[in-house]
Amino acid sequence: MEAIFLSLFEKGLIHVYTGNGKGKTTSAMGLIVRCVGHEGKVAMVQFMKGWPFYGEIKGLSYLPGVELFRTGSDRCFKKGEHTEVDLREARRGLEIAERCLTDPKYDLVVLDEINVAVHFDLLKVSDVLNLISAKLASIEVVLTGRYAPKEIIEVADLVTEMVEIKHPYQKNVLARKGIEY
Amino acid sequence: MEAIFLSLFEKGLIHVYTGNGKGKTTSAMGLIVRCVGHEGKVAMVQFMKGWPFYGEIKGLSYLPGVELFRTGSDRCFKKGEHTEVDLREARRGLEIAERCLTDPKYDLVVLDEINVAVHFDLLKVSDVLNLISAKLASIEVVLTGRYAPKEIIEVADLVTEMVEIKHPYQKNVLARKGIEY
Repeated sequence: MEAIFLSLFEKGLIHVYTGNGKGKTTSAMGLIVRCVGHEGKVAMVQFMKGWPFYGEIKGLSYLPGVELFRTGSDRCFKKGEHTEVDLREARRGLEIAERCLTDPKYDLVVLDEINVAVHFDLLKVSDVLNLISAKLASIEVVLTGRYAPKEIIEVADLVTEMVEIKHPYQKNVLARKGIEY
Repeated sequence: MEAIFLSLFEKGLIHVYTGNGKGKTTSAMGLIVRCVGHEGKVAMVQFMKGWPFYGEIKGLSYLPGVELFRTGSDRCFKKGEHTEVDLREARRGLEIAERCLTDPKYDLVVLDEINVAVHFDLLKVSDVLNLISAKLASIEVVLTGRYAPKEIIEVADLVTEMVEIKHPYQKNVLARKGIEY
């Protein structure tokens, strides 16, 4: 894959998918589908996703060359109300991400919901900036989650904001198995 | 999957992914990953994609229960400069979509780039509206592509606009194998 990603760039790019609309994690999963379609090796490191998202976990398990690392507790919390466990889990995710982003076997590394982990003060912006700056040139990295800090947007090559135009949540409907998770 | 999709809604929803940013087709592919993770059956009908997008084709081939139907010629053209072949291929895609959306075996049907086919006058908005109104209640449908017409946005349950905040194309870089296709 190196040849593929480096064919037109001197380095693997930094993507950010943010915004309040649907399609951030799903876009990253779509990139994973394309990447494995080219025999690429992928690591997806999930933050704040201790609760089992069965659809993602099982669906990704069908794709060769994809490793999924899930971190986070299984409970939701308001900003400022995180526990030691939440901090420890985010730190664990950061360490896994550091290992993956410096391992030449990977072509694509997805840091799922890492923007949200920063927003919830589980990680510092500087943690993420250091993580990205230390990555191997050959590796393409994708950061997902709403609330992407401007410092991360500044260093990114490719930023898409998913804007919610219309959503059934507006009709007070809950997340649905198979679509939202 | 019916039970899954109908557990909180009286019908499968109509999703639209539009806008000029990255992540429309990839989001649809991510939904496919989740759907097959729940043993769902999926049809992806692609419009104006006769040119082989190997990453998508091979990547999706790893997912059980996913059928890919590709239509369109392998050439690009400006709006108003389409040929009989382009029209015939779009019509063929519409017919495949009609069959899939009325086949109870499918849980999710993706109409990839159908919005663009309408924008390029290969299909009429009324063709797509009729298509959607005829779908089985149990089937979730996703329409992708920039230029989604307002009539389609009106009937959709869930609309996300992908907004390009930053893109390497701004630096005059071409599409890259493994990421854009």
